[in-house]
Amino acid sequence: MQRKYISKAVINRLPRYYRYLGDLLEKDVVRISSKELSEKMKVTASQIRQDLNNFGGFGQQGYGYNVEYLHTEIGKILGLDKKYNIIIVGAGNLGQALANYSDFERRGFYVKCIFDINPRLVGLSIRGIDIKFIDEMEEFIKLNQVDIAALTLPKAKAPQVAADLANWGIKGIWNFAPTDLHLTEDIIVENVHLAESLMKLSYKLSEKQNPADK
Amino acid sequence: MQRKYISKAVINRLPRYYRYLGDLLEKDVVRISSKELSEKMKVTASQIRQDLNNFGGFGQQGYGYNVEYLHTEIGKILGLDKKYNIIIVGAGNLGQALANYSDFERRGFYVKCIFDINPRLVGLSIRGIDIKFIDEMEEFIKLNQVDIAALTLPKAKAPQVAADLANWGIKGIWNFAPTDLHLTEDIIVENVHLAESLMKLSYKLSEKQNPADK
Repeated sequence: MQRKYISKAVINRLPRYYRYLGDLLEKDVVRISSKELSEKMKVTASQIRQDLNNFGGFGQQGYGYNVEYLHTEIGKILGLDKKYNIIIVGAGNLGQALANYSDFERRGFYVKCIFDINPRLVGLSIRGIDIKFIDEMEEFIKLNQVDIAALTLPKAKAPQVAADLANWGIKGIWNFAPTDLHLTEDIIVENVHLAESLMKLSYKLSEKQNPADK
Repeated sequence: MQRKYISKAVINRLPRYYRYLGDLLEKDVVRISSKELSEKMKVTASQIRQDLNNFGGFGQQGYGYNVEYLHTEIGKILGLDKKYNIIIVGAGNLGQALANYSDFERRGFYVKCIFDINPRLVGLSIRGIDIKFIDEMEEFIKLNQVDIAALTLPKAKAPQVAADLANWGIKGIWNFAPTDLHLTEDIIVENVHLAESLMKLSYKLSEKQNPADK
């Protein structure tokens, strides 16, 4: 099936729609108007209508949107109707936090293994997920059809590990190391740069205390 | 001192410049040309020149940029010349990961205390930072001039805790709970929505396997 083209700006907003619609589903809400959704999400009803029009004619005058249908359709666009096998590279606190987050599975992301070099961690398991020695990673990836690797390891090690992962067939990297990974265009990299997020917060705080000349 | 106005697009790119310049400083690099920096950062030299021109005339033909000076100036714009007291609300893996991240201190962010409701965690400490019972939070904030609260707690609890924190004088919230916080405009909220980041990754993977009609 050929997918419909949807603009990047809309795509960037989809995870948030998906989250709100998921919350409504949990509360057994069957349908919602663009006005109600707009009040919850603090965006204009017209933006919601425009965005959701991309997914066909299921916003009807006087009825609103069918929550479950829209949630499912947006999930499909986001690729959440598929299953992904994930490994976590780095079993420190952040790697453990990701391994413990059972919500990912509900969305199709299955953490299959965690890798580390620390002999005190290797052999343990988190929520039934084994921590293995990093030397076993190549074989594990090949045997288990791993799609995504989450990198929760120091920045000095991340580029080489990422290059190895790419060579071994990993298609997507969820990068938490505070460095940019320069890989071939085949490999999708999604960065979570925590320090940069904290800097944005401090910028906004400092801007508030001492506003700029406009 | 009145600050100079800098566009939002430039501001959004500053943390990344700051990170690259910091890496160069660690390697004792004294100066760098826009061309070299552009190759490292994979952006055009002309964008770098335009962006950095906002910080005065210290990019000189034939000399390049003074790394330390530029790093310091961008740090000031980002508010990193100030000290911030932080508390972490939620001592689970993610809260512990943040408490263990000593790099934040180097940039002026001091984690003063962690709060939780779990009696098995209360009384412990992480890197010398106490975990206290959440009932002690109001008093602690008032006595210790806390600026920022990192919320690493379940989404069901986040909105009420955030509202309390705002009432007790917290100015910035670094929100890791998978929910939007609707607070007054006085309070700066910076969200880190991990599940949404993972959805963007899955969207890109799925788009790659099955490209959209353009």
